[in-house]
Amino acid sequence: MSKLVIVGTVAFDAIETPFGKTDKILGGAATFIGLAASQFDVDGAIVSVVGGDFPEEYLKLLADRGLDISALEVVKNGKTFFWAGKYHNDMNSRDTLVTELNVLADFNPAVPSAYKDAEVVMLGNLHPLVQLSVIEQMNAPKLIILDTMNFWMDNTWGDLMKVIAKVDVITINDEEARQLTKEYSLVTAAQKIMTLGPKYVVIKKGEHGALLFHKKEIFYAPALPLEEVFDPTGAGDTFAGGFTGYLAKSSDFSFENMKRAIIHGSALASFCVERFGTERLQSLSKPELQKRLQQFKDLTQFNIELT
Amino acid sequence: MSKLVIVGTVAFDAIETPFGKTDKILGGAATFIGLAASQFDVDGAIVSVVGGDFPEEYLKLLADRGLDISALEVVKNGKTFFWAGKYHNDMNSRDTLVTELNVLADFNPAVPSAYKDAEVVMLGNLHPLVQLSVIEQMNAPKLIILDTMNFWMDNTWGDLMKVIAKVDVITINDEEARQLTKEYSLVTAAQKIMTLGPKYVVIKKGEHGALLFHKKEIFYAPALPLEEVFDPTGAGDTFAGGFTGYLAKSSDFSFENMKRAIIHGSALASFCVERFGTERLQSLSKPELQKRLQQFKDLTQFNIELT
Repeated sequence: MSKLVIVGTVAFDAIETPFGKTDKILGGAATFIGLAASQFDVDGAIVSVVGGDFPEEYLKLLADRGLDISALEVVKNGKTFFWAGKYHNDMNSRDTLVTELNVLADFNPAVPSAYKDAEVVMLGNLHPLVQLSVIEQMNAPKLIILDTMNFWMDNTWGDLMKVIAKVDVITINDEEARQLTKEYSLVTAAQKIMTLGPKYVVIKKGEHGALLFHKKEIFYAPALPLEEVFDPTGAGDTFAGGFTGYLAKSSDFSFENMKRAIIHGSALASFCVERFGTERLQSLSKPELQKRLQQFKDLTQFNIELT
Repeated sequence: MSKLVIVGTVAFDAIETPFGKTDKILGGAATFIGLAASQFDVDGAIVSVVGGDFPEEYLKLLADRGLDISALEVVKNGKTFFWAGKYHNDMNSRDTLVTELNVLADFNPAVPSAYKDAEVVMLGNLHPLVQLSVIEQMNAPKLIILDTMNFWMDNTWGDLMKVIAKVDVITINDEEARQLTKEYSLVTAAQKIMTLGPKYVVIKKGEHGALLFHKKEIFYAPALPLEEVFDPTGAGDTFAGGFTGYLAKSSDFSFENMKRAIIHGSALASFCVERFGTERLQSLSKPELQKRLQQFKDLTQFNIELT
């Protein structure tokens, strides 16, 4: 097993979907990543910041999953990052209603000394300079995984390029891959991204699954076809967390093992969307995950003998 | 091997894409279906109609693939069905510029007597009453596969429902599945369609692959990620033809074999889009198809041991 460092937001989310709405609930990229990765009993630390308004029970919830929260800074007189959004009827698009950075505005990440030698680093969606700072604090990680989004392409292009140059894997959605490369074809986009730094490119296509690229190789994992998506919030982070957690647990960073990691990430994401926020990840059991993985096998595996 | 009856259009297409444009070239649903199915050396007959303007060389081209064209009626003083379309830059949408039904307006299909005992019937996209007439001429087919489109839902709903009630498999695209059922979720849509007649539902999602539904089972086949789609015309028909041809050749209509058939259909469709019209299907060799099938295996197969 490899040690894992997760940096990202720990936040309050308020979500409205056609199925209902929530008050402020637990959210944030590092939260979803951590909860997903902890399904594999990883030795992981969360590097993030919250305000004095962040409930003890949420901190306990993360710690109870075996996550080290010594670098989850609590700014007593500050407020936790808050995001509110409303999904449209087709669940494929949403409006952001509120973004309050709060304590995130002045966040200086500090990797715990016990985790500076971690082999795996997961950089959740955050300002590229924060991600860069985490990379610089590490000794010699074997695998750095980056998640980012269009906001940083629009506003901090140069800083983002510096981070991209230093990572092994990037996870990004299809529209962001197109924005990053000015290429419509995802195959061409992935090839371009591999010239910027990452040796592996994961393109997330939401309900249409995810593609993993490495050199000339491509692997495709579908999303589980669902009767109903209740709340998509955190699905991408859960996917990334499952991917990362599986890799950290197995300490095998080969393309073959990344295929397995992508399937585990997809399986966890399929649970995430069944309830609001982190609810389903919190209640998830190992036998449920095994059963879901069997569904992915049934969904994708076939037997064709080639001549 | 099972005998196969294919009904559908044989046509002239004029196509414009960002990569170029064609004059009138060989097209039509039955043409693409036939060319794809003939990759499996099936014993198939095409039931269709063309005008006196249809070149001998096109008839010969179909006959040379081993397809029976005795029921491909030539109306000497009529004109062949003509469609012209222009694709938008993203290749995912197109405008129809011309639709001239011509001889298709009075088409009365006549299944050759040697093929009335065929086990497999492929009803390509056409007026539902023409499809119904073909079904009624058959003795006792084991597998009837229906392709249709939104035009018939808009204009001949009642007739279409009569055909749907009589078929075993329906192939339909995602938007059409939603239109047919008023359901957004494709899982729910497929379940509803299965109550209308078909035991198997294939939902085509273009560049996002295809889903096969049967009872509670689901199988997913991706489309091959391509650097460039040159011309999407006929890809759906090629997919259906590959699916049908593989099933007819193997005479195994189980869900397991339908998985293999879907992969073969997807592989053939991935060739179709590489050139204008039927060009790539005409030049396709068996080793090329085998190599492409291996790419589909590499793309989708993984090894996860479950506990």
